Amino acid sequence: MRNSSIILLFLVVGLCCQGCESVPSGCGSSSEKPINVRLSELGITLPEVATPVAAYVNVVESGNLIFVSGQLPKRDGKVIFTGKVGRDIELAEAQKAARLCAINALAAIEAQLGSLEQVNRIVRVEVFVNSSTGFTGQSQVANGASLLLQQVFGDAGRHARMAVGVAELPLNATVEVAMIVEKK
Amino acid sequence: MRNSSIILLFLVVGLCCQGCESVPSGCGSSSEKPINVRLSELGITLPEVATPVAAYVNVVESGNLIFVSGQLPKRDGKVIFTGKVGRDIELAEAQKAARLCAINALAAIEAQLGSLEQVNRIVRVEVFVNSSTGFTGQSQVANGASLLLQQVFGDAGRHARMAVGVAELPLNATVEVAMIVEKK
Amino acid sequence: MRNSSIILLFLVVGLCCQGCESVPSGCGSSSEKPINVRLSELGITLPEVATPVAAYVNVVESGNLIFVSGQLPKRDGKVIFTGKVGRDIELAEAQKAARLCAINALAAIEAQLGSLEQVNRIVRVEVFVNSSTGFTGQSQVANGASLLLQQVFGDAGRHARMAVGVAELPLNATVEVAMIVEKK
Repeated sequence: MRNSSIILLFLVVGLCCQGCESVPSGCGSSSEKPINVRLSELGITLPEVATPVAAYVNVVESGNLIFVSGQLPKRDGKVIFTGKVGRDIELAEAQKAARLCAINALAAIEAQLGSLEQVNRIVRVEVFVNSSTGFTGQSQVANGASLLLQQVFGDAGRHARMAVGVAELPLNATVEVAMIVEKK
Repeated sequence: MRNSSIILLFLVVGLCCQGCESVPSGCGSSSEKPINVRLSELGITLPEVATPVAAYVNVVESGNLIFVSGQLPKRDGKVIFTGKVGRDIELAEAQKAARLCAINALAAIEAQLGSLEQVNRIVRVEVFVNSSTGFTGQSQVANGASLLLQQVFGDAGRHARMAVGVAELPLNATVEVAMIVEKK
Repeated sequence: MRNSSIILLFLVVGLCCQGCESVPSGCGSSSEKPINVRLSELGITLPEVATPVAAYVNVVESGNLIFVSGQLPKRDGKVIFTGKVGRDIELAEAQKAARLCAINALAAIEAQLGSLEQVNRIVRVEVFVNSSTGFTGQSQVANGASLLLQQVFGDAGRHARMAVGVAELPLNATVEVAMIVEKK
């Protein structure tokens, strides 16, 4: 009698939790090297994270999703890539700007989670490119961020993405990158 | 004694899972017809899905949310609606472009889930309209995508939405549509 | 025997639900005053919520996330802040417009959840600013929404945010604000 009730227990709990357990597919740490080794091999030192001066925060967790605020291509607190791609700044520079935004996002995630090893996968990357009239290479600019994420996280760094050309960006930044990340 | 412990089991499991089970509101398969019948009635054949050439993917799953990358109005690998609404292309054509983006998103979802029957509901649709100066009909353009989703999924196709007018889009596309979908 | 099976039951249920329970971090109702008291102290009366005329809805729930459609600065069904910041409308007015969008979002959330007390925290705020050439103060405009949310919800109102300058917005609105919110 005792055994049957235990078996039933497992059955019911199993059925009940099938619907609610969060099983991320296509993720996992396929990368063998620790993230910090990868970063240093890429010559990347994550910067100190500045607290936003306004009434918002860099990162919010909800369940196991991490929402990262739109990051600008800042270094030492200053936007170092400004202007519109196709008029004020070259594509190659804009790609570096997108890469820097992604690095700043990683710094914000690390500050929140304690370690980038806690990232299960990059879910979504949103790239807003300050675009001059007629510039239609937003995907190439966005690749600056996407490639960095794949270099750092391997397969777990591959993400859904949107890239659009906006009219203006805060502080005349060349690009702004926001992210949604899944933690382990 | 056996009965009471079973009843207790159900009670506790019920209470425990109330907080964690994902109960989408206002969804459900209110549509009686299979999705593929609806699609063929609408004259829609889902295209082959091309793998993005860059370091991102069409679809990422996290829990039971599906994040679909920004889709362009492509057919056979080519963007077939280009230019800015209000200058280069008429509203009615832009609506067709938005509809095509949504169809491409459905193709990507089907490729990921195996069947569109696995879609529980469309959660959010993001519409970026390549807009000429003074064009303020972004909502009407977006309806091209929204109506298609409602035709295909019925009530489960009704979604939260944002629609904005951007300065430029990749490959001079007329519209880009990204989505968040909940699977069953 | 009865006791041991009950203890086992709790243990198993506890283990099972550890993975699936959604524990939002950094949230909680740190605010002592009820939300409706805060709103009235701020002189805010939440408006009636109009049903969108198109094939989308104001709010979609998925799990404990609430996705709010892009809100325009409408009052009594009319957009009352129009034009581009930096050309047609001053920064201070644009901030009021962003605040009004946020108020309309709260009205939509209240209509969905029954009460704003059901909000656990504001997760993410997306601000699209109708920007004239050379206007780069999108963050300041967005603060109009962010500050309101912090005033209403306290720490639970602090959110991840992105703010960009778009070329055009529906109905020539000055700003559009979308949100992701976590319910209790």
